Amino acid sequence: MEDLIKKVREFRQERNWDQYHSPKNLVMALMVEAGELAEQFQWLTEEQSSRLQPDKLAQVQEEIGDVLIYLVNLCDKLGIDPMDAAREKLEKNREKYPAAKVRGKYFKYSEYE
Amino acid sequence: MEDLIKKVREFRQERNWDQYHSPKNLVMALMVEAGELAEQFQWLTEEQSSRLQPDKLAQVQEEIGDVLIYLVNLCDKLGIDPMDAAREKLEKNREKYPAAKVRGKYFKYSEYE
Amino acid sequence: MEDLIKKVREFRQERNWDQYHSPKNLVMALMVEAGELAEQFQWLTEEQSSRLQPDKLAQVQEEIGDVLIYLVNLCDKLGIDPMDAAREKLEKNREKYPAAKVRGKYFKYSEYE
Amino acid sequence: MEDLIKKVREFRQERNWDQYHSPKNLVMALMVEAGELAEQFQWLTEEQSSRLQPDKLAQVQEEIGDVLIYLVNLCDKLGIDPMDAAREKLEKNREKYPAAKVRGKYFKYSEYE
Repeated sequence: MEDLIKKVREFRQERNWDQYHSPKNLVMALMVEAGELAEQFQWLTEEQSSRLQPDKLAQVQEEIGDVLIYLVNLCDKLGIDPMDAAREKLEKNREKYPAAKVRGKYFKYSEYE
Repeated sequence: MEDLIKKVREFRQERNWDQYHSPKNLVMALMVEAGELAEQFQWLTEEQSSRLQPDKLAQVQEEIGDVLIYLVNLCDKLGIDPMDAAREKLEKNREKYPAAKVRGKYFKYSEYE
Repeated sequence: MEDLIKKVREFRQERNWDQYHSPKNLVMALMVEAGELAEQFQWLTEEQSSRLQPDKLAQVQEEIGDVLIYLVNLCDKLGIDPMDAAREKLEKNREKYPAAKVRGKYFKYSEYE
Repeated sequence: MEDLIKKVREFRQERNWDQYHSPKNLVMALMVEAGELAEQFQWLTEEQSSRLQPDKLAQVQEEIGDVLIYLVNLCDKLGIDPMDAAREKLEKNREKYPAAKVRGKYFKYSEYE
């Protein structure tokens, strides 16, 4: 991840794009890319989405790359470590959704106690 | 990243949530979380978005965590390496937006030649 | 629609919120609300999404209301008539996806000629 | 609005697309179109977003048209009247954000009492 952060930062600075990369704009760009990712899936059934053709999968991989690039840019601007963010949130989710109580159910814990 | 992938997979399997985690659903969840991230920024000016208060920053970090968790889940289901996806896309972007030509401009290369 | 536009405008002005309602911010808010709408559907199967329980349906209706409110606000700020926008786009889509050629298929026309 | 609903329904049925138009898929499509709308604004300042060039404005109008078309499709499938949804939500927002208390502030009422 450190290597990717460095590469993303260089890419931005070589192009003098810091001026456009406010956290607000980066979040908006992230949503735009997430939309392009969703576009690949919108008319597929869930089952079809699990067995993508190679061409489609390559396209999906590119869109995933874009989402992660903007996420890393955003984190870099905000001084957030993306891996820490994910790990800490996962720990929090462990408490929010205790495995023993939510096995096979997908709702907020408070909804089905 | 390997460690995070492993943790995310365990979390999902302990809860028997694989049944809900079709790539299509994960993309939708990713967009929902990206929306929650955007909610933190929607009424801020760009300038305000660059100097978040500690409480707000902590909330933003959680939402970033959620986005990355779903992105990793999606990649795991599709057999995509997220870091490779970002690195390869960044390379592609280098060709698409040559630094010498796009310095300080933020448009598709084809738009301003 | 004229009545809704008028109501939305009054609501905004009574609260002195015009200062926050730049088109950019309204688009971001629209995406946030669309995300809240998507949250209601993310773990449902397509089939389940067609037969929502009354409570869920009421919640979905509220989120749809929010999306439309922001869309109307945006149109009001940009001087766009939302109904014209939809009607004109529908006409354009008629040419892009001729019924005789695309019956039962859901791809860009250029993809399957 | 009744006229638009009728046109949207005809368009869908002439193409035999009802099979793809589950509420879940329509919500996903709505988000994708909202993302395309956001793409037009992502690198603009708020101020720039208020004075779009004619070409840009025409593009924005098309994206707004797409968002409304999918919103109307969704409402039609769910048996929701979009105008009622917006009006009822606006009434609810009147109670949630009393004008006398929130003038010029943009936060949840509970955040600043």
